[in-house]
Amino acid sequence: MLITKRVEFSASHVCRSPLLSDRENQELFGAAANPYGHGHNYAVEVTVEGNPDPVTGMVMDLKKLKDVIHREVVEVYDHRFLNHEVPPFDHIVPTAENIAIDVWQRLDLHLSKDGSRLHAVRIFETPDLYVDYFGGAA
Amino acid sequence: MLITKRVEFSASHVCRSPLLSDRENQELFGAAANPYGHGHNYAVEVTVEGNPDPVTGMVMDLKKLKDVIHREVVEVYDHRFLNHEVPPFDHIVPTAENIAIDVWQRLDLHLSKDGSRLHAVRIFETPDLYVDYFGGAA
Amino acid sequence: MLITKRVEFSASHVCRSPLLSDRENQELFGAAANPYGHGHNYAVEVTVEGNPDPVTGMVMDLKKLKDVIHREVVEVYDHRFLNHEVPPFDHIVPTAENIAIDVWQRLDLHLSKDGSRLHAVRIFETPDLYVDYFGGAA
Amino acid sequence: MLITKRVEFSASHVCRSPLLSDRENQELFGAAANPYGHGHNYAVEVTVEGNPDPVTGMVMDLKKLKDVIHREVVEVYDHRFLNHEVPPFDHIVPTAENIAIDVWQRLDLHLSKDGSRLHAVRIFETPDLYVDYFGGAA
Amino acid sequence: MLITKRVEFSASHVCRSPLLSDRENQELFGAAANPYGHGHNYAVEVTVEGNPDPVTGMVMDLKKLKDVIHREVVEVYDHRFLNHEVPPFDHIVPTAENIAIDVWQRLDLHLSKDGSRLHAVRIFETPDLYVDYFGGAA
Amino acid sequence: MLITKRVEFSASHVCRSPLLSDRENQELFGAAANPYGHGHNYAVEVTVEGNPDPVTGMVMDLKKLKDVIHREVVEVYDHRFLNHEVPPFDHIVPTAENIAIDVWQRLDLHLSKDGSRLHAVRIFETPDLYVDYFGGAA
Repeated sequence: MLITKRVEFSASHVCRSPLLSDRENQELFGAAANPYGHGHNYAVEVTVEGNPDPVTGMVMDLKKLKDVIHREVVEVYDHRFLNHEVPPFDHIVPTAENIAIDVWQRLDLHLSKDGSRLHAVRIFETPDLYVDYFGGAA
Repeated sequence: MLITKRVEFSASHVCRSPLLSDRENQELFGAAANPYGHGHNYAVEVTVEGNPDPVTGMVMDLKKLKDVIHREVVEVYDHRFLNHEVPPFDHIVPTAENIAIDVWQRLDLHLSKDGSRLHAVRIFETPDLYVDYFGGAA
Repeated sequence: MLITKRVEFSASHVCRSPLLSDRENQELFGAAANPYGHGHNYAVEVTVEGNPDPVTGMVMDLKKLKDVIHREVVEVYDHRFLNHEVPPFDHIVPTAENIAIDVWQRLDLHLSKDGSRLHAVRIFETPDLYVDYFGGAA
Repeated sequence: MLITKRVEFSASHVCRSPLLSDRENQELFGAAANPYGHGHNYAVEVTVEGNPDPVTGMVMDLKKLKDVIHREVVEVYDHRFLNHEVPPFDHIVPTAENIAIDVWQRLDLHLSKDGSRLHAVRIFETPDLYVDYFGGAA
Repeated sequence: MLITKRVEFSASHVCRSPLLSDRENQELFGAAANPYGHGHNYAVEVTVEGNPDPVTGMVMDLKKLKDVIHREVVEVYDHRFLNHEVPPFDHIVPTAENIAIDVWQRLDLHLSKDGSRLHAVRIFETPDLYVDYFGGAA
Repeated sequence: MLITKRVEFSASHVCRSPLLSDRENQELFGAAANPYGHGHNYAVEVTVEGNPDPVTGMVMDLKKLKDVIHREVVEVYDHRFLNHEVPPFDHIVPTAENIAIDVWQRLDLHLSKDGSRLHAVRIFETPDLYVDYFGGAA
């Protein structure tokens, strides 16, 4: 059984790597490499796996799930310029892929216990582009 | 190959267990434990697995799929107070998790035959909270 | 210039009038007359009219708008059985039309001041059914 | 008769006024005043009024409508940090209200001719917050 | 007070006028002029104006509203090639504008009586393109 | 890690098999067997599996992904009557299932290379009906 909670945050980012030249960044990322940055209303879907408790009928305490996601992800990312304000994006390109890995690492310890397990993190950069990460080798 | 049909119904429920005290229910479920109940526009996504028929190009007869879901789920749940009117929710908390298990049990016999197999039931309690159930150990 | 803020709440209701017989209620409201009630994820869109302030660029302080809607509407309606817990729905049928009028009355005094004016209240009962109320003769 | 075309762009902005102190900006705009900026997937709905041509059945040439919106709005705003890269937001706070006025001014001359007239500009900053501007006194 | 009901239908159409040459049709409508046709999941929003009845709380009988829209619009348009099967589109281009006028004419007599009045018809050709018609001079 | 790009196209189709009689087609497909055809705004979600590049942070070059999908799918299907204009639908029923298989075959060679692999194709015929195909035995 899987349970998924969706939250949203607004942030800005630049897609450019310090390991590439300006021209390489431009060719690879196009307008997303603009150094002033641009932004998105990101959506995050966090999926936890477990069995519903016979008494409560819940895979995990839903209020705790919401609290953890808010404290560990929304409060960290919301209304931020990711490259400048949210490590590790000072040295890693904040693509949707890398955001998914970072969100996983922020949540895994808190959600994988007491019989439940973090199963997946989905990041929507726009409604038409999203990534899924399931932990392990990225 | 998977095919998924989505339907919606409106129902009300209370999240409280007779095995817990009032205080425990309140702490666990918060406002959802209010005994008068509250409601949702639930969405159900039913996924069937199979191979498309070489002649018809369909995994299963789509009209039959719609008919079964309407008869076995929508007509049973729609415009009902689940705890009072839809067994087993007289003695089981109607969380999204338990609704998914009940929908599975209502559909499995009808959809797992003639070369197709019920693969998953997804229940959206709100657009921001959903569960997936794949049968077997819940 | 209009600015619109959307919020959601979950509630249950029964559509039946004490002035009508059981049979009349059933004929008029169908399944919605079921006395146990049923529920919806309601969405409320509150629209305020005004001119943006030359310094702040805002029609009204957005945090105040959100706070008023939460305090006067969401906290009152959310997770409630409207007929039993939210006056005036003890004696008025909680159709979307009457909810819109009640929401207007709860908000008008708070939003129609300091150069702005409550312009419209839209209530979605489902994504496919909504009403708009602009104040005055209902 | 009205026809409305919706487009989207991704941009970042800061909500702070040079006419206010840091503390005033913080109190007024909260997290949105963070000087690094944050971003949104903005949606723009452009509404044109006119009568459908008896031969073509169109209020205006739809390809021209799309072209004008892309050239005058999307290409200017998309993947930009509005305060730093898109005048007049170097000296005006890029609230949704002010963006709507600016979009109107960029489009009005191009769309109000040949029997049609720009009727409204709607800006969604998020799916839950939008403004409408109809020209004239803002 | 306005109440709006939304329905959907799937149909195909060609945008070309018999009064124009092939080349003119191609230049004006582009790919939409392809004579084999193409299709859409159209959405129709029908808005009725009136005052809620003091006893029932409804602007008009909601079941009647749904029945009229289904009988007069959905059953006529759904799963049809509009140019070939739904007059007047044998001689009028089925643009969203002209569909809105035709839907208005099919509904007006049925909805403008008993104290209510047809207020608007909105046709979504795609989620990003819609028209509004309010009756009278088109 | 999975990355998914969504695109849309508008097309029309008929669901009828030349191997079945008129009556069989009518019984099986209902209104969808109407020989004039009807249409949909189809959505296609293409999912690619891979590991994000340590320098670029991307599973694959996003611009290439978009270009391939546009060239191989959107340009082929958009504004077409599938049975008449897009092989193999001259002899195979264009159900959502068969469209998913055809889209897979058009994309697999282009996306399964350089360390990434086509993982899934999802086709939405309407928002309430979709299929998933993962390659191999259909």
